[in-house]
Amino acid sequence: MGYFRENIEKLSGYVPGFQPSGLDVVKLNTNENPYPPSPGVAGVLRDFDIALLRRYPSPVGAKFRKAAAQLNGVEEGNIICTNGGDDLLTIAFRSFCDKSRAVAYPVPTYTLYDELAELQECPVIKVPFSSENLFDKLAATNAKLVIFCNPNAPTGTYYQPELIGGLAGKLEGRAVVLVDEAYADFAPGNCVSLIKEHKNLIILRSLSKGYSLAGLRFGYGIADSGLIDGMMTLKDSYNVDALSIEIATAAITDRAYFAKNIELVKSQRQRVTEQLRAMGLDVPDSNTNFVFAKITNPQAAYVYEQLKKKNIFIRYFPLEGIADRLRITIGTAAENDKLLAGLKEILAD
Amino acid sequence: MGYFRENIEKLSGYVPGFQPSGLDVVKLNTNENPYPPSPGVAGVLRDFDIALLRRYPSPVGAKFRKAAAQLNGVEEGNIICTNGGDDLLTIAFRSFCDKSRAVAYPVPTYTLYDELAELQECPVIKVPFSSENLFDKLAATNAKLVIFCNPNAPTGTYYQPELIGGLAGKLEGRAVVLVDEAYADFAPGNCVSLIKEHKNLIILRSLSKGYSLAGLRFGYGIADSGLIDGMMTLKDSYNVDALSIEIATAAITDRAYFAKNIELVKSQRQRVTEQLRAMGLDVPDSNTNFVFAKITNPQAAYVYEQLKKKNIFIRYFPLEGIADRLRITIGTAAENDKLLAGLKEILAD
Repeated sequence: MGYFRENIEKLSGYVPGFQPSGLDVVKLNTNENPYPPSPGVAGVLRDFDIALLRRYPSPVGAKFRKAAAQLNGVEEGNIICTNGGDDLLTIAFRSFCDKSRAVAYPVPTYTLYDELAELQECPVIKVPFSSENLFDKLAATNAKLVIFCNPNAPTGTYYQPELIGGLAGKLEGRAVVLVDEAYADFAPGNCVSLIKEHKNLIILRSLSKGYSLAGLRFGYGIADSGLIDGMMTLKDSYNVDALSIEIATAAITDRAYFAKNIELVKSQRQRVTEQLRAMGLDVPDSNTNFVFAKITNPQAAYVYEQLKKKNIFIRYFPLEGIADRLRITIGTAAENDKLLAGLKEILAD
Repeated sequence: MGYFRENIEKLSGYVPGFQPSGLDVVKLNTNENPYPPSPGVAGVLRDFDIALLRRYPSPVGAKFRKAAAQLNGVEEGNIICTNGGDDLLTIAFRSFCDKSRAVAYPVPTYTLYDELAELQECPVIKVPFSSENLFDKLAATNAKLVIFCNPNAPTGTYYQPELIGGLAGKLEGRAVVLVDEAYADFAPGNCVSLIKEHKNLIILRSLSKGYSLAGLRFGYGIADSGLIDGMMTLKDSYNVDALSIEIATAAITDRAYFAKNIELVKSQRQRVTEQLRAMGLDVPDSNTNFVFAKITNPQAAYVYEQLKKKNIFIRYFPLEGIADRLRITIGTAAENDKLLAGLKEILAD
């Protein structure tokens, strides 16, 4: 075209997981929660007065902010509402990175980070998760933003909060650490309590996975109010809408439903893990709503393609170091049955 | 803090119009539509299956895209859905501007452009609307993005599409022209048909004003598919949510309601204009859902403050060239009655 900035012309854009449209497919490829959201969401739709939509929403998502602060044991000033977790990532890159301010993150991880770095034209320092002294290496970079996806996608690894707190401590005064906790609802712990100790720590949360609201686009950040205030100045003036604020608030305040949903996913995760292992796949314990299974005979890419022919969609990444893996979202019991049966057929061929 | 980029530390952030929370106030300060959205919106809320929210939305807002293409007589590939019109402005600045690529726009205008330019660290070329040879001056700059707010806020001026088409023609191959038509639903014409002639033209549309959906955050861009495809690579992967796509589609397809709503606003606009003129204010014909009235005795700032004391909120900009003006959103007949009565009292004091 010639009209765009040069770095934009080179940009390929993040490629979302394939969204099959048929109803008879088993869709285990984008880490969506297999269960519907809280019934409280239906209650919001039933009771919402559409006349409210003619007015601008709260620029800070006040109602959700208050609920999220209570839930996490922090102040309202420690919360920023975002249009999905991706919006917070965009805000962070624009806040802390540019041509002379690098970003660092362990890899392999969420590939959107690469796209956002290209867009912001900032140097990228990648440290393999498999490195010895991973945290020392991250602390030794000159990056102004360090992103740590925990639990990580697509690998599912989980690091103890103390290790991440230690990293933030080492980087204090030098860099911000953003912990991408999009999957933390399925993990044994999280880093929220650390924001009181570390003024350079941002926790990213999403309602897409644990609250079954990927379609709503609602996430939030938790951090010291200094970081929150700065990020507020550059977010879109009204980045979350009036109806989403109500729905998201209803979802995070229904603790009983949330607990039940998470337990259901975890118990299916346990079953899928055991069954895959029984079939000979190498499956690390998962801390997320997916498993990351190693298979070499037949090859992972072949299994992925064969499952697709059976209308069972999982995710395969043809990337160095993980090309022998399959990322399988945990579905309902019935979906998991179909996955396991399909896989058994392929392995028996 | 020290953690942020230097330009972010300097950023003040766009200040949205004050949102009074009481119910007994007359709120004519942020150009919201005084009437509720289409009843079709209530129908969406009634029929929406919340289980759909567990899945990611269409990355391109497919359903709305199709409806907006039909409405505007263009192809789906000519439409980009955005999280409010502001999201499109952000995308445009990130697409076309940086430290060595300037933006230009006539002033006074929507102050968000200034904020977005600071954030993107691009040079800003401002040309007063009152300049002789306004279009020649805009065409003579080296800007890579020219924004033309038409009708303009806060002044309400409206330029014929041919003039803007002429500007795009002169800039072809050199720069993109973005016409901010957030208020075009209330104007005598618009620039949509020009995108077929000009591959460097982007039309911004918003559902906030004409469709009474400021709370929903839904806007879109109309342009040649080359520009749309490029902007798609850098927008957030899922920038509009599943429920908003349905609501926005219902709103723009209810043409009868839309026509009635616009006529109601226009007829109240006519009445308010005449009454203000009868009180001695200098009120240009409006092409928007607000009037921009000049008053010097008493001073505009004084009138603004006195109205506020009566719980009547309008907008006053203490800026060079427009400090003698009041921007008054057109309300319902009852709200306009209160405004006119309040103003009469102040002028009689």
